[in-house]
Amino acid sequence: LAEPIITLTSDFGLSDGYVASMKGVILGIAPDARLVDISHDIPPQEVRSAAFVLATCYECFPAGTVHLAVVDPGVGTERRAIAVRTRSGFFIGPDNGIFSLVLAKETGWEARSLENEDLWRNPVSAIFHGRDIFAPVAAGIARGVAFELVGPVCFPAVLEWSSPIAGRAEVEGEIIHIDRFGNCITNVTKEHLNAAGPLESWCLRAGGIEIPSILETYGRGAPGSALALVGSSGYIEIAVNQGSAASRLGLHPGTKILFLRIDI
Amino acid sequence: LAEPIITLTSDFGLSDGYVASMKGVILGIAPDARLVDISHDIPPQEVRSAAFVLATCYECFPAGTVHLAVVDPGVGTERRAIAVRTRSGFFIGPDNGIFSLVLAKETGWEARSLENEDLWRNPVSAIFHGRDIFAPVAAGIARGVAFELVGPVCFPAVLEWSSPIAGRAEVEGEIIHIDRFGNCITNVTKEHLNAAGPLESWCLRAGGIEIPSILETYGRGAPGSALALVGSSGYIEIAVNQGSAASRLGLHPGTKILFLRIDI
Amino acid sequence: LAEPIITLTSDFGLSDGYVASMKGVILGIAPDARLVDISHDIPPQEVRSAAFVLATCYECFPAGTVHLAVVDPGVGTERRAIAVRTRSGFFIGPDNGIFSLVLAKETGWEARSLENEDLWRNPVSAIFHGRDIFAPVAAGIARGVAFELVGPVCFPAVLEWSSPIAGRAEVEGEIIHIDRFGNCITNVTKEHLNAAGPLESWCLRAGGIEIPSILETYGRGAPGSALALVGSSGYIEIAVNQGSAASRLGLHPGTKILFLRIDI
Repeated sequence: LAEPIITLTSDFGLSDGYVASMKGVILGIAPDARLVDISHDIPPQEVRSAAFVLATCYECFPAGTVHLAVVDPGVGTERRAIAVRTRSGFFIGPDNGIFSLVLAKETGWEARSLENEDLWRNPVSAIFHGRDIFAPVAAGIARGVAFELVGPVCFPAVLEWSSPIAGRAEVEGEIIHIDRFGNCITNVTKEHLNAAGPLESWCLRAGGIEIPSILETYGRGAPGSALALVGSSGYIEIAVNQGSAASRLGLHPGTKILFLRIDI
Repeated sequence: LAEPIITLTSDFGLSDGYVASMKGVILGIAPDARLVDISHDIPPQEVRSAAFVLATCYECFPAGTVHLAVVDPGVGTERRAIAVRTRSGFFIGPDNGIFSLVLAKETGWEARSLENEDLWRNPVSAIFHGRDIFAPVAAGIARGVAFELVGPVCFPAVLEWSSPIAGRAEVEGEIIHIDRFGNCITNVTKEHLNAAGPLESWCLRAGGIEIPSILETYGRGAPGSALALVGSSGYIEIAVNQGSAASRLGLHPGTKILFLRIDI
Repeated sequence: LAEPIITLTSDFGLSDGYVASMKGVILGIAPDARLVDISHDIPPQEVRSAAFVLATCYECFPAGTVHLAVVDPGVGTERRAIAVRTRSGFFIGPDNGIFSLVLAKETGWEARSLENEDLWRNPVSAIFHGRDIFAPVAAGIARGVAFELVGPVCFPAVLEWSSPIAGRAEVEGEIIHIDRFGNCITNVTKEHLNAAGPLESWCLRAGGIEIPSILETYGRGAPGSALALVGSSGYIEIAVNQGSAASRLGLHPGTKILFLRIDI
């Protein structure tokens, strides 16, 4: 039998003991769990960025993988803690929209509110639910605890940045993530555009300039020129050939991006 | 039988091959070891910070875990190399106080000086004992080499920053670590204060201001206001609501912090 | 039987989902693979730095280890993808010289061009061969796919920075990597110098100063003074006692370094 996989995503960084604390708790409960870091360098409290990073890679993991994601500005308040089961795997974290982009891709999922304290660490710290609630619940699920036992069915928060606003001849999206190279990823996918017209029929406006077409690869265009392309996970992204689109065009998470049909 | 766990803590960073070299050596000796990074972003040569990070998370790991910690300004000099066995696990590293905060929490431990060269790599580089001495000894212990074989019993260095100075109505501590969010962690625990008076009876002075009370959670107080709270691992820390306490109050490792009884 | 080890080296950083995507793909094909990060903080597109980091640590891993290295400025162009089998293990990546320093240390290796699409993900993205070609081929080899099946024999690119220019009384090398501490590593090894004369007979010129000798360890010399020493992996490096040689001497990757015999 394959060892269960648990991925970890957070804004904890790797200069403190926070991530290791979660891993220690997991290995105490599920000693054969295989731990894979997705990222712990999510900008502090940037739920949107965590949602994007998780959405870009969770489908690469085998079915049944448990994904633990803790970007949790509301820790210590009344925000709910949830687990979601999809056809791809399990998702454990705060109910703040962090799984919005994953759930937009999935069908047939079920969410539950984490209320079964028997699955938690005891005592629960008021400020570190990653270690005391999310990690032990993730480890429990990885070990085979029945999903129904984590708590009652609920409906998770879905935040507005999780979908673009689509019209017949235009789509308004926004930047949801800046990657290491300064590429600016939008919340608009190839499918969003294709629903209204073929990829070749769209241009876009970003940071005061117009980008006339959406390419399928890097490596064309003069150095320093801006281009738009379908990123490796299907979201449209804005890049600058051998440079940073974020700094060259002044883009940041939340910047609105307008896609326009050029054939209408 | 569960696979042995080895954690790694260092100031090597992750842009070079140093950490991977240690892992390769470990897996050559103990192929079934489960490797967990605690942090490799300890500020260069900051033994105090490594001691703190390790102390905050080692108790989350299963008993018997082997903790390898290499922040080693004295490599190539006469400083001793040690291994310590506690009820929680094993600790392998240079004898420079890096395990001081762990040992302050443990009872019934035994330390030994690493002198059995049969357990080392051959030859031993003068400048990379992490790869050539600490990693192979950690892997040996993980594989079940008897602890007594690593070398003779010794008494490890205990550095002065490892304990606050406690009086009847005041406790003088210092900042020992700044976390990713700018929270400033002191070497004073809830237990240090409780020994003289209940948590509610203390205030503290830091960076020219007085913080009137010590809370049990974040999330109260106006944005930008300073507060003190019991951190997730028991040490008192100074935070600024939605900001960095380190930059706002000018605190850094070594800054003295005075705790005062307000009821006396 | 020991679980197969796959190491990963890239310039993807750890703030995005790129590395996790490769790991998910690997675990889907080779569920028992043991994944070890070497570094994902290679400066963007710095093939030279990746080549160095890999060369410093691959020999620490058990024979048969699979090393995946993706620093790939040419992705989407005609550059070849290769796998190399050596006595130490397997190396999978783009054919841009990334394995040059490894192959300079190895004898009896064989390289093959990745052309067997049955071993790839389907479809293959134009911009993320790490996930779609290199990761699945590495996982296949780790699972025991015959090396011959990856594609036909080829001869890999060897780049000029991979070897110094050696004369009878001088050797011209260059800086190929700056480590976390600002130490500047050259492409010149102890063996390169020994071939012409003993280590004690060499001095070197770097950043406008002359360093009169090459030491075997740190820890001598006044704070702030520059020194040259044999690094932990055999390459000569330039360090500044308790400081950064890169910033103090103005050295960067590509800076020429001249080694001179002082006894001639």
